[in-house]
Amino acid sequence: MIKKILIANRGEIAVRIIRTCKLLNINTVAVYSTADKEAYHTQLADESICIGDAPSKNSYLNMDSIIEAAKGTGADAIHPGFGFLSENSTFARKVIDAGIIFIGPEPEVIDRMGDKSNARASMIAAGVSVVPGSKECIATKDDCIEMANKIGYPVIIKASSGGGGRGMRIVYEESDCVTAYEQARSEALISFGDDSVYMEKYLVNPKHIEVQLLGDKHGNVVHLFERDCSMQRRNQKTVEEAPCDVLTQEAKERLYADAIKAAKYVNYDSVGTIEFLVDHQQNHYFMEMNTRIQVEHTISEMITGLDLIKQQIRVAEGKPLEFTQDEITLQGHAIECRINAENVKANFAPNPGTIKTFHVPGGQGIRIDSAVYAGYTIPPFYDSMILKLIVHAPTRLEAIKRMRVALEELLIEGVETNIEFQYLLFHDPIFVSGRYDTSSLTKFIEEVKKNELSL
Amino acid sequence: MIKKILIANRGEIAVRIIRTCKLLNINTVAVYSTADKEAYHTQLADESICIGDAPSKNSYLNMDSIIEAAKGTGADAIHPGFGFLSENSTFARKVIDAGIIFIGPEPEVIDRMGDKSNARASMIAAGVSVVPGSKECIATKDDCIEMANKIGYPVIIKASSGGGGRGMRIVYEESDCVTAYEQARSEALISFGDDSVYMEKYLVNPKHIEVQLLGDKHGNVVHLFERDCSMQRRNQKTVEEAPCDVLTQEAKERLYADAIKAAKYVNYDSVGTIEFLVDHQQNHYFMEMNTRIQVEHTISEMITGLDLIKQQIRVAEGKPLEFTQDEITLQGHAIECRINAENVKANFAPNPGTIKTFHVPGGQGIRIDSAVYAGYTIPPFYDSMILKLIVHAPTRLEAIKRMRVALEELLIEGVETNIEFQYLLFHDPIFVSGRYDTSSLTKFIEEVKKNELSL
Repeated sequence: MIKKILIANRGEIAVRIIRTCKLLNINTVAVYSTADKEAYHTQLADESICIGDAPSKNSYLNMDSIIEAAKGTGADAIHPGFGFLSENSTFARKVIDAGIIFIGPEPEVIDRMGDKSNARASMIAAGVSVVPGSKECIATKDDCIEMANKIGYPVIIKASSGGGGRGMRIVYEESDCVTAYEQARSEALISFGDDSVYMEKYLVNPKHIEVQLLGDKHGNVVHLFERDCSMQRRNQKTVEEAPCDVLTQEAKERLYADAIKAAKYVNYDSVGTIEFLVDHQQNHYFMEMNTRIQVEHTISEMITGLDLIKQQIRVAEGKPLEFTQDEITLQGHAIECRINAENVKANFAPNPGTIKTFHVPGGQGIRIDSAVYAGYTIPPFYDSMILKLIVHAPTRLEAIKRMRVALEELLIEGVETNIEFQYLLFHDPIFVSGRYDTSSLTKFIEEVKKNELSL
Repeated sequence: MIKKILIANRGEIAVRIIRTCKLLNINTVAVYSTADKEAYHTQLADESICIGDAPSKNSYLNMDSIIEAAKGTGADAIHPGFGFLSENSTFARKVIDAGIIFIGPEPEVIDRMGDKSNARASMIAAGVSVVPGSKECIATKDDCIEMANKIGYPVIIKASSGGGGRGMRIVYEESDCVTAYEQARSEALISFGDDSVYMEKYLVNPKHIEVQLLGDKHGNVVHLFERDCSMQRRNQKTVEEAPCDVLTQEAKERLYADAIKAAKYVNYDSVGTIEFLVDHQQNHYFMEMNTRIQVEHTISEMITGLDLIKQQIRVAEGKPLEFTQDEITLQGHAIECRINAENVKANFAPNPGTIKTFHVPGGQGIRIDSAVYAGYTIPPFYDSMILKLIVHAPTRLEAIKRMRVALEELLIEGVETNIEFQYLLFHDPIFVSGRYDTSSLTKFIEEVKKNELSL
C-alpha cells in the first residue's frame, strides 16, 4: 500500500492528483520551482519541497532533485503527471532504482511505445491497424502502380531520405501515379542526393480519435471508450469530447479491439491512451501511444464515473482491476474546453500575468479543473493552460449548450484568455455537427480572422 | 411549449433555474428588489425587472408586481423557486388567471397538501402511514390505557386546546399512563380552561427522511429515491444526503410506496417532496408535503443524473414523463452542505457583508450552486445561505472524504461563514456513522461549544 506520493508536476494536474490522494488517505508531497512558491499545488499538498529554479530543466525536469525530495520526505511513490518526465524511461528507471514506485508503466514499455518507429513495428507485429505502406523503396513504375492499388488511393509518395515536404507527392488516382513517382524521385535526387522513394496511405483530414486504456499487473486491460480530439491547432488539442457520436458502433468496436490488442501485446499495466487517425470511411490507423495520464482524461471520467488517478494508483500498487469491461458503462456525453492565458489575436501567444478576477461557472454537470485563483500571478515559464472547463450532460447537444452557458459565466480578468474564441467555436456549425477533423480548427481560425469575429 | 419564464425568486435557486432554461432555449426574466440590483441572478437572465423595495413583502412577495412583470415581458410561465410565493395557492391562482403557466402543481393541490391538518386527513384517507393517534379526546383512564397499548409506547398526551408544551406528557410505559393522563388534564384545565386531551405516538429522535417525487398531468408519478435531512438546527436543514444508507431496502420500499400512493391520491403533477419521520424501528410516518422544488433537490439530481428543473418545466408544459420508474437508476452517493454567511459563535446569527475572497473547490464529483462572487455585497434582507457545496462519489465514505477536501479548499473571506463548523461536523463520529437523527445536530453544537472546538 502506497502511503505517501510525491507529485513530480505542477498546475492543475498536480492539484488533480493531490485531490484524489486525499480521498485515498495518501499523504502528498508537492515539488515546486522558485517561480511556483505561491502556486496552488504547492499550497494544497501536505508537504512542499522546492526543487530548483524556474526553468524546467532545473526543477520539474531535474530527475535527481525530484528523487532526492522523494527520499527526503519518505515518499514511497512518484506520480509524474503528464508532460515533463512522465514519458521519460530514464526517470522511471531512476525512480525504481531508488526503491520508489513509479506510478506508470514499466520503463521497458515506455521505451517500446515511446519511440514512434519501435511502436509502429510492435503494432504491426501485434496485428493492429497502422497506416498502410512500406518503408521499402519503390523499384519500378509498375511496382508503384501495384502498391498504390493495393493500399488504395489517395497515397503519398515520400523521399526515403527526405523531410520537409520535398520529394513528396500525393496521388489521388492511378492515372497520376507514374508522373508523381517520377517527379518525387527527381525532386528527391536534387534535394537529398538519393532518389529512393516509398509509399504510404494518405489520410485526407482524418479525425484524431483516441482510446483510454487501463491495465493492471495481472494481464487485465479494459478500455474506457473513445475521445474525439480532432480540434487541434498545431497538434495542440483545444477541445475534446467523449464519446465520438459520428463514429458507427461497428467502427468503435474495431477501435476498442485494436486498442486492447495493442496494450495486451506490450503487457501494458497502467493508464494509457492509444491515439488513432480515423479516415472518412471510418478506418482507423495506429498513430501513437501515450504511456501516461492525459490532459483530457477528465471526459472519460465523466462518462464512466471512474476516477482514473485512483485507478492508476491502485494498479501501481499491484492490485487487480476492480471491474471487468462489461461493468464499465457509458453515461451521457462530456466535453472539455481548454482555457489558456493567451492572446488569440496575437497568434495565440501566451499571456502570463496576474489574474485579477476569477469567477467560475457552477451548477449541474460542470467540472472545473484548475490551479489558479484571483490574485495569482501566472509565471511565464510553463504551459499557458490555466483551466479545464468540463461539462457533462445526457446528450452531445445538451453538453454543447451547457458549455456555452458555462463559457458565458466564466470570467477571468487580468490576463488575455481564449474564452471568447472557445465560445465562438462552440457555435461553429462544423463543430456542432460533430463532423470535424484535424484540419477544421485551422479553417475556423482563418474564418475568425477573415471576418474579424468577436463578441 | 414554454418560450419565456419569469423566475419569481432570487439567489442560487434563481441562478439554478436560469441555467436550465438556457439549456432548453427558454428565455428568462429575472425579477429583483432594489437591494438585488447587483445580484448574480439579475445579471444572468436575459431580461431583469425591478419589482420593488428590499423588504420581501414589497418585492419577492408582491404578487401583482411579479405578475405585471411577467405580462410586460411576455413571459408565458412563472417559476416560483422555493420559499417566497412557491407554496402560495393564491399566487398560483392569480398567475393562472392572468393566462400564465404556473410551474408547480394545481392550486387545489397546494391547498390540499399545504394545510397540515388537511394533509393529514388526506393521507389517512389515502392509506399512507401517519403518526398514529387520534384528535378525539380521551374520555376515561381506561380509554387512555387502551389507546396507548394500541398505539404502542412511548405515546404523548396533549391538550386539545393547548400548545407550547403545556398539558403535555410523554408516557414510556403503561404503569405511568394514568398519572400522566391526570396531570395532563389538570395542567390543561389550568392553562387553557379545558381539560380535554388526546394522544399520539411519540417519536423519540426520529430521522427526517424525504422522498423526491415527480408527477405529470397524465397520472404518472415516479420517485427519485430518498434524502436523509435529519441534520437540522431549529428545523433548518444543514447537511443532506442521498441515499440514506442506514435504512434497510425493505424500509425504503415501504417509504417509496407510501410517497407514490400519497402523490397519486392528490393527482400530484409536478416536482414535490414527501417528508417522513422515521423511528428507530424504521417505521415511517407522513409529516408533510412540499409542493415545490427544494433546496436539496441537487443531491437527487446527482444520484439519478436527472435535471429536476428541466423535468418540472416539461410536466408544466403538459408533457408526459420521459422515463418510467424502472429507468431511473441510483448511482453513488451525494451530499449537500449548506454554506451560510453567519456567525456560528454568535448563535449562528446571519452575517451579511461584502465578500472579499471567494475561491471554490473544483475537480471530480464537485458541484457548486451559488449566486455570490468576490466583491458581492450580501444584502441583509434575505436568507443567509450563500452557497450549496455538493459532492458525488461512488460510496458514502468517499463522498464524506470528498466533502472534507472540498471544505478545506473552499475559501470565503469578508463575511463570517459556517465553513469551519461544517468541516468539524464532517468529522463527527455520529454523522460519519450515518446513525444520526433530528436531535444530533443540537447535541453536536453543544459539544462544539462545550469543548470550544475550532480549527
